[in-house]
Order: sequence, then C-alpha cells, then structure tokens
Amino acid sequence: MSVTPPSSVSDDPIGIAVIGAGYWGPNLVRNFQASRTFRLRWLCDLDVDRARRVLGDYSTVQVSADLDEVLADPEVRAVAIATPAGTHLPVAMAALRAGKHVLVEKPLAATYEEGRLLVEEADRRGLTLMCDHTYCYTPAVLRIRELLHSGELGDLHFLDSVRINLGLVQRDIDVVWDLAPHDLSILDFVLPPGVNPVAVAAHGADGIGAGRACVAYLTLQLNTGAIAHIHVNWLSPVKIRTAIFGGSKRTLVWDDLNPSQRLAIYDRGVDVSSPELGDEQRHDILVSYRSGDMVAPALVEREALRTMVDEYARAITTGAPALTDGRSGLRVLEILQAASLSLAEGGTMIKLDEGHMA
Amino acid sequence: MSVTPPSSVSDDPIGIAVIGAGYWGPNLVRNFQASRTFRLRWLCDLDVDRARRVLGDYSTVQVSADLDEVLADPEVRAVAIATPAGTHLPVAMAALRAGKHVLVEKPLAATYEEGRLLVEEADRRGLTLMCDHTYCYTPAVLRIRELLHSGELGDLHFLDSVRINLGLVQRDIDVVWDLAPHDLSILDFVLPPGVNPVAVAAHGADGIGAGRACVAYLTLQLNTGAIAHIHVNWLSPVKIRTAIFGGSKRTLVWDDLNPSQRLAIYDRGVDVSSPELGDEQRHDILVSYRSGDMVAPALVEREALRTMVDEYARAITTGAPALTDGRSGLRVLEILQAASLSLAEGGTMIKLDEGHMA
Amino acid sequence: MSVTPPSSVSDDPIGIAVIGAGYWGPNLVRNFQASRTFRLRWLCDLDVDRARRVLGDYSTVQVSADLDEVLADPEVRAVAIATPAGTHLPVAMAALRAGKHVLVEKPLAATYEEGRLLVEEADRRGLTLMCDHTYCYTPAVLRIRELLHSGELGDLHFLDSVRINLGLVQRDIDVVWDLAPHDLSILDFVLPPGVNPVAVAAHGADGIGAGRACVAYLTLQLNTGAIAHIHVNWLSPVKIRTAIFGGSKRTLVWDDLNPSQRLAIYDRGVDVSSPELGDEQRHDILVSYRSGDMVAPALVEREALRTMVDEYARAITTGAPALTDGRSGLRVLEILQAASLSLAEGGTMIKLDEGHMA
Amino acid sequence: MSVTPPSSVSDDPIGIAVIGAGYWGPNLVRNFQASRTFRLRWLCDLDVDRARRVLGDYSTVQVSADLDEVLADPEVRAVAIATPAGTHLPVAMAALRAGKHVLVEKPLAATYEEGRLLVEEADRRGLTLMCDHTYCYTPAVLRIRELLHSGELGDLHFLDSVRINLGLVQRDIDVVWDLAPHDLSILDFVLPPGVNPVAVAAHGADGIGAGRACVAYLTLQLNTGAIAHIHVNWLSPVKIRTAIFGGSKRTLVWDDLNPSQRLAIYDRGVDVSSPELGDEQRHDILVSYRSGDMVAPALVEREALRTMVDEYARAITTGAPALTDGRSGLRVLEILQAASLSLAEGGTMIKLDEGHMA
Repeated sequence: MSVTPPSSVSDDPIGIAVIGAGYWGPNLVRNFQASRTFRLRWLCDLDVDRARRVLGDYSTVQVSADLDEVLADPEVRAVAIATPAGTHLPVAMAALRAGKHVLVEKPLAATYEEGRLLVEEADRRGLTLMCDHTYCYTPAVLRIRELLHSGELGDLHFLDSVRINLGLVQRDIDVVWDLAPHDLSILDFVLPPGVNPVAVAAHGADGIGAGRACVAYLTLQLNTGAIAHIHVNWLSPVKIRTAIFGGSKRTLVWDDLNPSQRLAIYDRGVDVSSPELGDEQRHDILVSYRSGDMVAPALVEREALRTMVDEYARAITTGAPALTDGRSGLRVLEILQAASLSLAEGGTMIKLDEGHMA
Repeated sequence: MSVTPPSSVSDDPIGIAVIGAGYWGPNLVRNFQASRTFRLRWLCDLDVDRARRVLGDYSTVQVSADLDEVLADPEVRAVAIATPAGTHLPVAMAALRAGKHVLVEKPLAATYEEGRLLVEEADRRGLTLMCDHTYCYTPAVLRIRELLHSGELGDLHFLDSVRINLGLVQRDIDVVWDLAPHDLSILDFVLPPGVNPVAVAAHGADGIGAGRACVAYLTLQLNTGAIAHIHVNWLSPVKIRTAIFGGSKRTLVWDDLNPSQRLAIYDRGVDVSSPELGDEQRHDILVSYRSGDMVAPALVEREALRTMVDEYARAITTGAPALTDGRSGLRVLEILQAASLSLAEGGTMIKLDEGHMA
Repeated sequence: MSVTPPSSVSDDPIGIAVIGAGYWGPNLVRNFQASRTFRLRWLCDLDVDRARRVLGDYSTVQVSADLDEVLADPEVRAVAIATPAGTHLPVAMAALRAGKHVLVEKPLAATYEEGRLLVEEADRRGLTLMCDHTYCYTPAVLRIRELLHSGELGDLHFLDSVRINLGLVQRDIDVVWDLAPHDLSILDFVLPPGVNPVAVAAHGADGIGAGRACVAYLTLQLNTGAIAHIHVNWLSPVKIRTAIFGGSKRTLVWDDLNPSQRLAIYDRGVDVSSPELGDEQRHDILVSYRSGDMVAPALVEREALRTMVDEYARAITTGAPALTDGRSGLRVLEILQAASLSLAEGGTMIKLDEGHMA
Repeated sequence: MSVTPPSSVSDDPIGIAVIGAGYWGPNLVRNFQASRTFRLRWLCDLDVDRARRVLGDYSTVQVSADLDEVLADPEVRAVAIATPAGTHLPVAMAALRAGKHVLVEKPLAATYEEGRLLVEEADRRGLTLMCDHTYCYTPAVLRIRELLHSGELGDLHFLDSVRINLGLVQRDIDVVWDLAPHDLSILDFVLPPGVNPVAVAAHGADGIGAGRACVAYLTLQLNTGAIAHIHVNWLSPVKIRTAIFGGSKRTLVWDDLNPSQRLAIYDRGVDVSSPELGDEQRHDILVSYRSGDMVAPALVEREALRTMVDEYARAITTGAPALTDGRSGLRVLEILQAASLSLAEGGTMIKLDEGHMA
C-alpha cells in the first residue's frame, strides 16, 4: 500500500470483485459500478445464473462460480463479501491470504472467535478489513454521531431503538442476529470515546413455533450508568424504525421512515440540579422542565452505500482504519454472543469484556 | 345491598363523596356530576381551598377537610378516593368500616399487603371495592378485550406496549409505579381466561439523577409462552402510547394518540405449520406469509371515566364484582412489587404467585 | 366605561349572561365560570330544560327563557350570544339597546347589512361589540400573527387552508357559511396591516343532494398579488385542518390536529433574484433553492376560549376595540357574501369593497 | 404487426431505443433493460456524454446523438421518447414515419393540435402510440380504477387531489403543465365510462417572480355534477400527494407517501334520501350518517414503470390500444390548454369539447 504514490492511486481505479449475488450483493454491484474509484471486475456466486441475472443482459462485468479464479486475477485488489455469515471466515480469509483488501457484510463473522481470526490476519498483512455497517453511513447516523461527539446533546442518558417489521424468518439465525447488528453497530459508531456497553441482557419469544426467537429485547448497560434498549421483531405488521437518544442537554428522535423529518432535536426535558439539599426539599425545588423548540436539521440525501464505498476506498488508499473497521465488527459480535447467552439463560445480565482486543 | 329492591335503586341516585381534589379528583367530580345514577354530595380534601377551586364558584356541592364528617353523612353510600397511594389503606379502610362502597384510583394501595387488607375487608362486609383502572373503560380497550376473548386475534404471541412522554418526575414513586399500572391493568383486563403472567423482569435507569428510575422496561412471561413487554419513560420529548398485540390469526395495533384510527387489525403475519418434518426441510416449506387487508374498526367515542362510573353503579346495585374489582388491583400490585424487586436485583426474572387470592 | 377607575373594575367581576344553550353555549358557560373577571348570572334559552341540562344539577346560575328578564337585570353588564346566526341581529340589538356589551358567536350576523347595523349601534353607544372568532385566540394563530406582523416569514406569497371533516350537514347554511368563517377570520387576524383580500371566487358541489354546497373552494386575491385558497368540506371521512403560509423568507405549516407539532417553520424554499437580466439567462442563473432546517416552536397550551374571554374583559374595561371586534366580523361577512354570489354565478371572481367601513 | 404470429413474438424481444437521457430517460432505460420482452438497443441524446453516464461504464447498449441513425436500425421496432415536450412532435413523428411504435413521456405534446397530428399519424399507419402516464400503472391507481369501475365506491361526488412539494421551477412551463398532467391522466384513467369533465377553471399565483404560476388550483366540473379539484404547487416545503375520492357508497383516500397504507376505504359518510317531503322536515328526517369501518386493502408492491412497459409490449403485440393511448394523452392536453386559458382570464370556467376525437 504505502509504496504506491497517492497520485497514481487516484488515476487508477481499484479493481474489485463482489462475492455473493443474493440479497445484498446486487446493492454492492450497483454502488461499485457507480463509483469512479472502483472498477468492478467480477461478480462471483456459486450459482452463476443468479449472478448473471443480477448483472442483467447488458453488462460487461465477468461472472464466476470459482472464488480462486477471481482471487487469482491480479487486477482485483479488493473484494466485497455478501455471502451467508457462516462462510465469512473461509471466504474472507482466502481473500486476505491472496493479498486482497476485504469488505464484509454484517455480521463480520459467525462467531467472535472467527471474527478475531480475520482481524488478526488483516493486521498481520497490513490489509484493510472493513465491515459493511451500512446504516452508519446514512446522513442521519453521521449527524447523530456528530451531535454526540461534539457534546451538543450532552451526556447520553438512554437510547431506545425499535426495529420491527414483518420480516423474513431466517433459516439459520434468530431475530437478534438478523436485525440487532444494525442497532449495535450504530451504537458503537455514535457513542463518544470512553463511553461503551459493559453488560447486556436479552429476552425473547418464539411464538409462532419457528424454533428461534422472533421477538427480542436487548438491554445494555453502559459504563456511564446509561441504558440502551433495542427491540427487534419479525412479527410486527407495522414497520417501525425509530431511535430516541436521550441526552442531558437535548433529546434526539430518529425516525428513519419519515424522509421529510428523519431527525428531530428537542430542547425539551427534565433537569435535576444540586443534589446537596435534604431529601424533602429536593424534588420540590430542584426538578425543572425545559420546554423549548424542536429543530429538524436539513440532511443531504445521499445513499449510505455510496458513502460506505467511498470510505472503503479511503481506507484502502490511506491505509488508515475504516470508520467501521474489523474491530467495530468484533465489538458487535461480542455483544451478539453475550445476548445469545443471556437469551438461553432466561435474561441474565451478561458482562462484556470490552476492550480486550481494541 | 340485597334488601334494596332494584326498582327503588334506580329512582334514588347513589350519594357519593369524592376524596382528594388533586390531579385526578376533578375528573371524578365532573363525571359523577354528569351521571344521573349518582348524586355528588361532598368533595373532601385536607386543603379546602383547593377543593373549592375544583368545584368553582357556582357549585352546590359541599366541601370538607374532615373525612369523618363526610363518612358520617348517611346520604353518602359510596366514595371515590383520589388521594396519594400511600393513604389509600387508611382512607379506604375507614370508608369500608363506615359501610361505604369504595372506588380507588390506581394503584389499589401502596403495597400488595395493604391491598389485600382492603380486599378482605370489602369481602367481609359485602361491599363493592373497585379499582379505577380508567384505560380499561376506553372504547379501544373494551374492543381489544372482546377481540382477544372471542378468539378473533387467535392466541396472543406477544404484546409490546409503549407509554412514554415528558412526564412529571414523581416525588415518591418511580416511573414503573407511576405509569406501568396502566399497562398492567390493561393486560389483566384483556387477557382471556386461563392466560396470565407468571414472571416479570425489569430494567431501568435514572439518568437525570432523580434518585429513582425514570426509564424502565418490564418483560413479562405468560403461562402460554407468550411475552409481554412494557416500556415506560418520563424523559421522552415525544409522546407515544402504542401497543401491539401479536396474535396467531391477526395482529392488532393500538395507537391511543391517533383518534381517527385508534385500532388497526392486520391480517398480515407469519404462519408456521406442521413441525413434524425434519429440520432441514422445515423452513423452506412451512413458513408462509399472510399479506391481507387492514381493518380499522369504527369505535364509538365515549369518555372512559363515564363508562367506569356506570360500571361502579352497576357493581353497587347488583352486588356483582366490577370488571376492575379489588382483585384485579391486587394482581397489578403483585406484578409491580415483583418488578421493583427485579429492578433492585439488576433484572432478575421474578416468579409471580398469581392466583393465591383470586 | 372610562369613568370607572381600573382598580375598582378588577375588584368587581363583570356580570354576564350567556344567550343560547345549544352547541356552542356550554363552552361559553364553562369559560365564563372559570374566569375571575366575569360573574356568570344567567343562561338564557327558549328551551329552559336544555339550559338546565347544560348547567347540570349542581349549579347556582339562573336559567331563563325570557331575554327581556335577563337584560333587565342591572347586574348584567355584558352578554355572550350563541344563538343561530339568523337571530343575531334582534338579540344583539336588544342587548346593545339595554346598554350591555356584546360578544357574538361567528358569524357576526346573517348578512353584511345586519352586521353593519350592529357595528353602528355599538359605536353610537360606546359599547364593546366583539366577535367570537375563537381560532384567532389559539396559541398557534397568535404565533402566526406575530410571525407575519414581525416580518419573520417575509411577504406572504400564498396561503392554502384545508378544513375538512365528516361534518353535520347544516339545516340553513352551506359549508362555506358553516366552516369558512374560521379560515376567513384567521386570515383577517394574521395579515399584516396594509395587506388584504380584494376579490374572491368560489366553486362548490352538493353531491349528496343536500340542497346546498357540501364541498367548496374559495380563492382570494390579495392586494399584494398573493393568493389565499380555502377548502371546506363536510363529506370527507378524514379530518384535516392544515394551513400553509408561504412567505418570501420562511414557510409555515400549521397542522391543528398534531398537538406535538402544531407549527413548523421551514427555512426551505425557492428564491428568484434580480429580474433585470435577459429572459434566457434568467432561470439558469437566478433561481436558487434554500434547504435549511425546520423549527417547531414550543407553544404554551392554553384553551383559546379562555384567552378570548380575557380579551372580552380587556375590551370592556379599557374601552379599546377587541382584537376581533365587530369590524373584523363585518370584513368576514363581506367575503362570505361575495363567495355566495360567486358560487351562484359558477365561479366568477367578485371584487370586494374592503375598507368602506373600517 | 398483424402478420407476425404471436408465438414468434414472445420468442423475439422487441428492439427498442430510448430517446432522451435527461431526468426521465434513465428510468426508462432501467425498466426496458429489466424486461425480457424488450431488447434495449440504443440510448439517444444530443449530449452523448450524458447518455454514456446514464448507461454507466459497464453497458453494452449503444449510444448515439443522431436520431436518424437510431431510426434507421431495422432491429429497432419501437421507441420511448423522454425529451422536452416541445420536441415531442418532430421526434415522435419521425419515429412513426420510420414505422416505429411510439411511447411518449407526458404530456403527449406541447399543444393539443400537435398531439392530434401524432394520434392521426399513428392511426393511419396502424402503429401503437402510447402515453407514459406512469401513475396510472401504480398498484394504487389500478385499484382505484377497479373500485370506481365496479361501482364499489358508488357514484363519484367529488375528487380532491393535492400534489405539492418544493419542486424545480421549470424553465419553459408553469406548475399546471408540469404537475397537473399526473392528476388529469389519473382522473381520465379511473373515471368509469360515461363520466367525464365538461369544464375547467384555474386560479394561480406566481409569488416568487418566476414569470409563471408556481401555485395553481384547477376546478373541473364533471358531466354528472360532480367536482374535481387539483392543487399543484412548487413552493410547498412539505411534500403532499393525496387524493380523496368521495363516492356515494364509500370514500377512498389515497396517500401516495404512506407506503404502509396507500389506500384507505371508508364506510363513513352522509346519506340523504327521498327529497319528496316538505323543506321543513327534510333535514331533520332524511340526513343520516354512516360511521363504519375503514379498510386498507393490501396492495402488491410493483414498480409502476415495469407495468407500463408490459402494457406497451401488450399494445404492440396485440395491436389493441394501450390503456393510456394517444387519445388519453389528447384528452389531458385539452384540459391543460383550457386551464391555461382560464388562468390567463383570471379564472373563467372554460367548456371542454370532450369527445370530438375520441
């Protein structure tokens, strides 16, 4: 990486291959094609007909069912993997060992251990390992991160996230592993430095006899005493994607399904001050209510995947970690595994060993 | 009660006194005045000026700061108590001992034990003891009860209830005791016979340093394997009052803040059938999706308190238990106490001994 | 009026009588009772039983079917009339001739001519004549007036007002006379000095065979070239009460059915500047788009009728015209009559002689 | 056309060229590429770089700036024109004269006369002339058409359509010509046989000094006495796309921006019966109100353009007129021209000579 002068980099698009032509692959194909920084060379899928259908009848992109053939192409400097999570380890490992930069669809791997192997391999080889936490690259989440990092919202008191819909009951994973990676990667992305989850409890129900949780609730304790709660649900006839970030100065409501007002920042809340006085006087005197305006900031409309693709290019060309690098993917995996354990134990609060790698 | 012939009852309004002129008392005053079945004789409050302000300058209703004076009035056959929960036991007990029927604002009492004393006393004396679980008498909740009891929604798989707002931080109780009685009494009211909660876990956070939970989540396990989850929150700048009742046949969404469409019944969902087959085939073959219409049933607009007042009259005149009698109040108290215990223990799932009195 | 020192006024509540116990009268009764500045002495209605029902069983207010008896009471210094519009002239005239201040429910009278007689009589006698344009006293409309008068929105380009619902088909008036007085009085109230309607056209349809327009559209031309459009409708199954005030600097959206966000001020719009250049260049260069934030200002929640009652007291005690005085009622009547004429002529634009009295 | 046996047709995709790579062209390109019935051969634009950008770096579709070259290709049997309306006549005429079927973006042509020349030419040559009234092919509008044609809504009493947004101020046309074609083509599409507009009036305002109407209101009289009203607006900071179809049996509300509930059918309304009685009794006795349920029918999600493309194929292969054929485009043009005349005359109601060609 470091030997390539930056100027030549920008002249020369990065040859890329997309691995996996299922649900998510077509979105990667479309966005890499639209980017001038990348040159899409291959779409690779065990089912080449499916791959051909994704590309359509008018495409010059090559199709292959053979990962080795793709990785052997010296023009391919980077890959983007959108295969089932269970295959992330072998596919990504093969790519890294072939000297390719790797972008992986969420979750990073099927287990924390597998994810760690990938992070270590990428480190060893000085290659970019990035996790496609797409939501983090929406204009809304980028702004939320800014508002929390800058202190504009104050300290985070609580986060309540709801992601429910009539969803596809997955064959191999429960609703926590299917949907919560979105919320957990967002949480990881927006929390200011020094603030992080330290424990998680999960409750769930199957209900329809699917053999796995279709409705689940995650409660995370943060090291600041704050709480983050996530509701994921495959059985809701109505679609809701809302998150409330309660801060000490402002409270932000994100409604991802309201394009005309995705973010709303409320100068409305409860303030409690000087807890020095005696108990009796305390609540008469010191609880006060703010009832200010609400501001819905204008957001530029930009497809998140396009920004994610740009960030991948930036990480590859500079060698600096991507905003959602392998380590962020690992942190998400750790919480997912702890949540599964809690679910199995009927809701026990499970401690996280956050920080042991990052 | 039983000696009075029903015909004369209807000719003769029931003399009633409202005890407590604070937040809720004025609503009771207004509704008892509007009812032809009751005759409001007293408004009783330690602060007689406050009582007078509630009645206004044009009222013929008597005011008193002396509960004994009110209970000594032989024309008073029933009372309605809207004082702080900590005083429910002495006030209601005095009324029962004076031979008066008693309606109590939620929660029934400050503790399960106190509530039990009231239920036993009312039983012993053959008097009506009713809990003002107002929400149960809204047209929406009455319809939900009907839909669940009749089997129209099928078996309940999950209930998700959200009741959040910028609320008054209470002096003496946390957000669970302040808001969850609404959700718990509704749950108690609508569940079909034989279905009931068996355990509860609670997670919460203070955040603003109020000295008590301002944000809390309750997870209830039902004896059917279903889950009920309740989110109560004093710190949300937006007001949400929504509940989703996921059934095996239909799913119902109740949005109490949408007067034009409070209930929506979705014929949309996931069906899983014949779990006899091997694991492999199972999810390819047997998961199917219904995607039918939504029906928003027309509801008569009627103030819940007016219906509650009618139910109180019916219970008094027939001697039959009210729909929300003391026992329902007790069941709510048991869950509240278990939730407090769970909260103190960091989210442990607490078993309920439901049924030991009812 | 002017000889009464203000101090004694505040000591002595203004004796008032409400005339009419139909749809609107009870609201007036409730608000005059709640005001310390007024003392409600009578509720007068030809149907005394109806009047008694409005007051309820616990009231000390007197009831009468005889207007003369009420007007003969020297303690009555002011009246509030909520009878059908066709009776406003005789009732209000009798009150003025008896030396009483007069508040009239909208519209001021059944015709412009009748309204003018009332305005002249009140002027002659130095009495307050006020129109109960209730909406003008909502916190939302008061704020809109402020925003337009202060120039914060810039010049008004267009107003689009929608007031539709499944409404009571009126016996004697069409939907224009039933609903548009609200929109027209609001328009009259918020327009800055010097800006006023100069012509109106109306289109309507009966549809259900009611014998009068049940759906109607009014288009008003303002003297500034701006347009105001009003949609009133008795046949809509959904209730909408929205108005958009398009200004040169900001655009305001008022949604009266969204209590958590009644007003929204958008810094979003189209700017066209320096129309000096040639036609060709004009639109490529000079049209620009603002895409700023939206602010939803915090509004105090206060019942409009209570503010209206205070304004009536202010007008009586100071002798200054009320914000919605008889003249504003007259201006509304003039537009209503012109709209009826336009409706009869199939939509002809009718000029207004605005200003000939005011 | 007729000599080609249908069986061979389906084997052989229809060669097509898209003319115009501006705002709408890319959507046509994408949908013709996705269709198996068509084979996209050319994208033609005076600016070939723009055309190349639309196709992207990976496409095998040919690009040309020369319409004659494209029309000379014998493999091209059909064209789709998405150039500015002013060029529709020469471009479409050249295509028809070259024996190609023609699809034209709305409006059909810049004037009614020009549109008529195209219809006549297509008739003479037995070629398909179709108007891309895209909205007509949305699942929502197809269902509305069904509901009106089948009589399920009863007779249409009123239509109220709102299409407002912060829109691009067009260089050459006003807001009526830019946006109202959508509403007018929908109206033309859904009205049952025998029901049609007979007159139109239009009111508008410029406001921002753009030199053309940026806000406009159209009122159409139907031959049944019903009214249709259309609000189009480039200056609204909020986007609204709603239409209410008031029928004698049911009323339908279409909210195109609410994907989870685009259509809502209300069994709610006002009924007036037997107007035989005397005037006095009439409204007391005969007005009745229905207050039934609302049903939101499940709609299949399908891109309208894909259905439109299928309909174009159907029209070409069968020789039958398309659902939105040239004649429907002409009817829309007639109303647009009458509306422009009305706007220029300050709102005069202009009669339509509907039927003189169709």
